[in-house]
Amino acid sequence: MSNPVLVVGSIALDTVRTPFGKIKEGLGGSATYFSVSASYFTPVKLVGVVGKDFPKRYVGMLKKHGIDTKCLEYKKGKTFRWTGNYDFDLSEAHTINTALNVFEHFNPKLPPDYASSPYIFLANIDPDLQMEVLKQVVNPHLVILDTMNFWISGKKKSLQKVLKKIDIFLLNESEARQLADESNLVRAARKIIAMGPATVIVKRGEYGALYFNSQSIFSAPSYPLENVFDPTGAGDSFAGGFVGYLARCGSKEDSCVRQAIIFGSVMGSFCVEDFSLNRLSRLSYPEILKRYHEIKQQAAFEAVNES
Amino acid sequence: MSNPVLVVGSIALDTVRTPFGKIKEGLGGSATYFSVSASYFTPVKLVGVVGKDFPKRYVGMLKKHGIDTKCLEYKKGKTFRWTGNYDFDLSEAHTINTALNVFEHFNPKLPPDYASSPYIFLANIDPDLQMEVLKQVVNPHLVILDTMNFWISGKKKSLQKVLKKIDIFLLNESEARQLADESNLVRAARKIIAMGPATVIVKRGEYGALYFNSQSIFSAPSYPLENVFDPTGAGDSFAGGFVGYLARCGSKEDSCVRQAIIFGSVMGSFCVEDFSLNRLSRLSYPEILKRYHEIKQQAAFEAVNES
Repeated sequence: MSNPVLVVGSIALDTVRTPFGKIKEGLGGSATYFSVSASYFTPVKLVGVVGKDFPKRYVGMLKKHGIDTKCLEYKKGKTFRWTGNYDFDLSEAHTINTALNVFEHFNPKLPPDYASSPYIFLANIDPDLQMEVLKQVVNPHLVILDTMNFWISGKKKSLQKVLKKIDIFLLNESEARQLADESNLVRAARKIIAMGPATVIVKRGEYGALYFNSQSIFSAPSYPLENVFDPTGAGDSFAGGFVGYLARCGSKEDSCVRQAIIFGSVMGSFCVEDFSLNRLSRLSYPEILKRYHEIKQQAAFEAVNES
Repeated sequence: MSNPVLVVGSIALDTVRTPFGKIKEGLGGSATYFSVSASYFTPVKLVGVVGKDFPKRYVGMLKKHGIDTKCLEYKKGKTFRWTGNYDFDLSEAHTINTALNVFEHFNPKLPPDYASSPYIFLANIDPDLQMEVLKQVVNPHLVILDTMNFWISGKKKSLQKVLKKIDIFLLNESEARQLADESNLVRAARKIIAMGPATVIVKRGEYGALYFNSQSIFSAPSYPLENVFDPTGAGDSFAGGFVGYLARCGSKEDSCVRQAIIFGSVMGSFCVEDFSLNRLSRLSYPEILKRYHEIKQQAAFEAVNES
């Protein structure tokens, strides 16, 4: 198979309530959703930290997906926990409680075979830590970064430093507007490209995604779902499909990036169909391809041959 | 050229303020935006009412676009006036004042050559009036209807009666959710199709549009704009491009409906680039085709040939 992807991010136990049900201490965290999602496309090396209380069955699931967990650190203490809920429109997560626990002092050290990974995904963690990881990697082919509003507000300068060192920046719509201080999304994306990353991908949830570089714009649809159960992890699952497929392709070409974004949408759409990784962890590659082809059909329209 | 489109709707003088400027008593109204937009694709017959104060230059502009204004009624009294503003994100119109004036007793009567128009667009007016018009039309090829939240709240039963008589229903996202009493858009669209129209098109502004019928879903992108000046009339301009192109095509085939939706997006995108019909009324067909092709490029992605 293809190029391995290194991911550094959070591993959590999530307690979530939506209008459709609830789950207590289900597997969560940005690195987790990303890893399982990407594992359908390419080998994954996971760097993260958990407490001694982390359920063995979750590690078993990750290993079953071929994810390399040798840098999954077990620390004395409790695993990172997040408690949140969603209202009926599922548009926004309301955080009830965040207990960083062992994640508070996360300080990833990469062994040589990890540091030389061609594809690096820096999931949503402190930008100073993202920079620490970047200093350790050796000659990467592609570095992709995610962030969140919390770091844009609290550590903008650190984030801007990291942005100079990466290739592709994934963020959502409100984050793009906030970082660029610009309400128009096209202008916001241009301002962010001027900060460093050659490519900016703005995730818009059920509205798909927009991909910007200096030459082109790609407007990617999402997969219209009849049953959205829990939006937690959708963005990280999107990232997993996106980076995983890019690594599988091995190319940075525009056509490959566009396909990768569609695979991102596909993986995000599977993620939200159940709590935690319940749906995401039980997929097959043919199922993934089937949904890709459905999106392709749903987005198709013909050229007009008149003048 | 192609099949004529009959439009029945409002003609107004709009006073609008956005963060980017203001306009006093500019030409507005659903039938006006629709007519000018559709006129680039097909002949348009306009049915509406204005007061004696309606500026002659506006009628001149409509005529310059080849729009048939013989059923533009001049009544004693003032033209319909709307005053509204938009906040910085331009997402929602805040109505300051609505003065229906002569529009209050609008009661359209179609002459025979109008009643036999093959394409009928019932713009956003009282559903009882929409029904009155429908009773007058003779054997139409396609009937397309628009509405607004005001009628969904206040005249739901009348609206549901009209829905049984039409082919294509255009509405926006929140209206679809409201009418179907269902937050999930896919399920909402299915419920609305069960009310009568074979085709439902959900307009999502800067996020494009979704087209549903019993067999397929089409996810249409919008044209990402760097300069949105005034969103007033975007939905009616969308409808004009959509119905106008359908009439030009003369076909109800899926591929033609999909192209028509993209032309709807194109016309909506031009509309919002200036106040009133300032941009919309100064287009050329090659400019319209150019933007269609740009959207086609922006939406393109390749199939994946693996299994």
